[in-house]
Amino acid sequence: MNKQRNHVHQLKLRSLGIDTYRENIIFMRSDCHICLSEGFTALTRLVVHHKNKSIIATLNVVKSNLLLDSEAALSEMAMKQLGVTDGDHISISHLKPIESLSDVRAKMFHHKIDKNAYFQIIHDITKGFYADIEIAAFIAACAGDNLDLEEITWLTEAMIHYGSRIKWNEKLILDKHCVGGLPGNRTTPIIVSIIAAAGLTIPKTSSRAITSPAGSADTIETMTPVNLSIEKIQEVVKKEKGCFTWGGTVKLSPADDILITVEKALDVDSAGQMIASVLSKKVAAGATHVVIEIPVGETAKVRTQAEGLKLQYYFKAVGNAVGLNIEVLITDGSQPVGKGIGPSLEAMDVLAVLRNKKDAPSDLKDKSLMISGALFELSGQMEKGKGILEAKQILESGKAYDKFLRICKAQGGFTEPKYGKFKTEIKSTVVGKVVSIDNRKLAKVAKLAGAPHYPAAGIYFEAPIGTQVEKGQTLFTIYAESEGELNYSLDYLKTSNHIITIE
Amino acid sequence: MNKQRNHVHQLKLRSLGIDTYRENIIFMRSDCHICLSEGFTALTRLVVHHKNKSIIATLNVVKSNLLLDSEAALSEMAMKQLGVTDGDHISISHLKPIESLSDVRAKMFHHKIDKNAYFQIIHDITKGFYADIEIAAFIAACAGDNLDLEEITWLTEAMIHYGSRIKWNEKLILDKHCVGGLPGNRTTPIIVSIIAAAGLTIPKTSSRAITSPAGSADTIETMTPVNLSIEKIQEVVKKEKGCFTWGGTVKLSPADDILITVEKALDVDSAGQMIASVLSKKVAAGATHVVIEIPVGETAKVRTQAEGLKLQYYFKAVGNAVGLNIEVLITDGSQPVGKGIGPSLEAMDVLAVLRNKKDAPSDLKDKSLMISGALFELSGQMEKGKGILEAKQILESGKAYDKFLRICKAQGGFTEPKYGKFKTEIKSTVVGKVVSIDNRKLAKVAKLAGAPHYPAAGIYFEAPIGTQVEKGQTLFTIYAESEGELNYSLDYLKTSNHIITIE
Repeated sequence: MNKQRNHVHQLKLRSLGIDTYRENIIFMRSDCHICLSEGFTALTRLVVHHKNKSIIATLNVVKSNLLLDSEAALSEMAMKQLGVTDGDHISISHLKPIESLSDVRAKMFHHKIDKNAYFQIIHDITKGFYADIEIAAFIAACAGDNLDLEEITWLTEAMIHYGSRIKWNEKLILDKHCVGGLPGNRTTPIIVSIIAAAGLTIPKTSSRAITSPAGSADTIETMTPVNLSIEKIQEVVKKEKGCFTWGGTVKLSPADDILITVEKALDVDSAGQMIASVLSKKVAAGATHVVIEIPVGETAKVRTQAEGLKLQYYFKAVGNAVGLNIEVLITDGSQPVGKGIGPSLEAMDVLAVLRNKKDAPSDLKDKSLMISGALFELSGQMEKGKGILEAKQILESGKAYDKFLRICKAQGGFTEPKYGKFKTEIKSTVVGKVVSIDNRKLAKVAKLAGAPHYPAAGIYFEAPIGTQVEKGQTLFTIYAESEGELNYSLDYLKTSNHIITIE
Repeated sequence: MNKQRNHVHQLKLRSLGIDTYRENIIFMRSDCHICLSEGFTALTRLVVHHKNKSIIATLNVVKSNLLLDSEAALSEMAMKQLGVTDGDHISISHLKPIESLSDVRAKMFHHKIDKNAYFQIIHDITKGFYADIEIAAFIAACAGDNLDLEEITWLTEAMIHYGSRIKWNEKLILDKHCVGGLPGNRTTPIIVSIIAAAGLTIPKTSSRAITSPAGSADTIETMTPVNLSIEKIQEVVKKEKGCFTWGGTVKLSPADDILITVEKALDVDSAGQMIASVLSKKVAAGATHVVIEIPVGETAKVRTQAEGLKLQYYFKAVGNAVGLNIEVLITDGSQPVGKGIGPSLEAMDVLAVLRNKKDAPSDLKDKSLMISGALFELSGQMEKGKGILEAKQILESGKAYDKFLRICKAQGGFTEPKYGKFKTEIKSTVVGKVVSIDNRKLAKVAKLAGAPHYPAAGIYFEAPIGTQVEKGQTLFTIYAESEGELNYSLDYLKTSNHIITIE
């Protein structure tokens, strides 16, 4: 493209203060000379330049005098990305056809695409070249069993390539991950505290919720800051051997952060994308030994043992290809773990376990010990079978809680999580025994109540499988931070059957 | 949902004159009482009510004093859909989870979904319940060979069910369609003129370009109005037996119109969606007998004979299931038809054929006669083998041109198509014979030059396969309506090889 032509169209920037979230929007007058001479039209995407920076933005046309002639406006995020403020001058050019989109189309049509294609797609997504509908199409094209082992490996390598990478001075860096789908499965802060208390290094970065009522980062954030820079993470880990922070702030895998936003909106999480997302972030975080938990249950994210075994195979194969030592644990995903569902309520469970409270959820404790044990053993620091006993000793002696508080302090301080202002107890209308629980529907109730956006919203769950319930006995309590959200989750409850089956 | 709660949040509407095209946007202050009390957040979609109407819109948050407290703004299309003007009062409520999206997810994961699912998805798309990323995911999920015969039939039936349907007094209603992918293949106005001149009824509605430089409707619009209401179409057809109009104005298949907008942006056109799109529109237009042309060529939309035969099978099977008599012709798609590529330039070819000009493109003429003949025969009005002779007689006698002008007059008048203001001749740098043409790249040049948005933009093509060319001989001429677009297509030419292969 002719460079001269790129920069002749100067427009004065006017801040309108419109937040369109992630997708960049440029607002231009329908009668402006650029629209007329260049022929921009509906759904046009174009390149906006300022000094030596440029971004891609979608055009919205203004048909009023909101903008003067020769003025344009950018959405808030676009201004930030381009580094401009009110009154700056920008120039506009055509967006060249994005070649990697033809690979996305090939993938939509179930063709295998090559390593170079994955690298180019991830490069272009990272650079913000893709519109949201194009990202949605890529996500849908990768869903199902569309990616084979090689393709998942290439996607993972591409995400690693275009992300940052934290360097550590130590050779042994532990990490863990749970594929999710099980409400309340909040083992991370417990495991990190146990491992770090044992003197091993575990710089854990967690994600926020994709489709669940809480991600680990959402839960931990109710107790301590999680938005830490890479420098701050390194400082915390140097001091305490472990941390539990949000991966998003450190831009370990910027393409993945973008993909996850759209996956969340679509409520989709496919195998290939998930493996690439998880493993690229582990490599980026500098991990060498990783334990991955796959809960399997009829209403968990992974529904069958066969699916669990296939994921186990992919995680190990792709993990080895990118240089990781991987152990995969398939666990029981038939019901929620602990009693809380939603950030603050799950944090309360975590604290109960760390504080060795009598009423601490034993399932959460047992699972944390099992994964900690597996980490000890995978690291080669302990014999097979000895890991879990060591983990138990560290937790029950109070050393883990002590380490937890020290890590919180290093991250910026500890605060006690709170309950939501509004609550309703859901009581049993029958007598009987709880025989099954629909995790997905229960998660939906918690989400409709406001979790994870409102951290104190969610569910306190008191009727695990096997519970003998009386008529009028509380099955669970819904917490919300606004009456609107509370009512909304109650509306859903009214129309939804078999969340808890009592016989 | 509690009806009372739906309507308590009143906001005063302020028109900002922002055109966001198809997706509805509502602009609300970040500190407004509804945002705060209901907890709306990024990418939130919500329901906007006015009197007894409602629409779904995506929330953009305003962080400036563009809006006063208790004010909100809607994008232009949203205001139109809701039937509101500046100063009206609107109310806001939560969007209930859209159940049919779980079927879209199932389809993304390659599960077969049932008839009811397709009906619900198409209903929800028609009602505007889907965000663009959700439509993109549905399109991607249906791409490849993901839909089986039954699913394509259900999708077609759903589109028919939620669209309009034109009723005709006659029993025999002819129609034709070309699956496209071949630049310049503009037989429609010629065929309609021949068939109608023979006294048979052919109320043809065409589409605008999806991924090509011109749809039939775009081409015809350079000669006569195509935005006709159903009533007007019926009036034209009653008078002249035929018409050539744009299908979009009559909302024959509103879901399809929405799907096509996103397909166009993604540059995707999959088999299942295409068959459902075409056949639903034929049924909606009241057709009984339809000839479908499938051009097959390496760089046409359909690339192999096998693919052509599969589409032929699907068209016939699904067509019969929805009550249509179908003939499918597989034709040569190795190179452009006629000389023009782009609305006005293609219209000039059409007129040359209708006017029996000596330099009229014979390929366009021959194909038009072949399809007209097939229609005569499919209708049962003529014996096998006699149709094409009858068509030839009607065209060469001038009866077809006479009918063409009468139809144009009935549709609102005839105008002569024009050339674009800016042009560049592309000359051969070698001596030799044209051995192959890349239709896709040639179409791209025409699109970059502005077609179909600027009707007079495009390519006049003078080097069909077999042409003996001299050094400096013009291969094709690019026309554009702005210098920017002309340069843009030239930029692409510079970086693109093998558009025309000369040996």
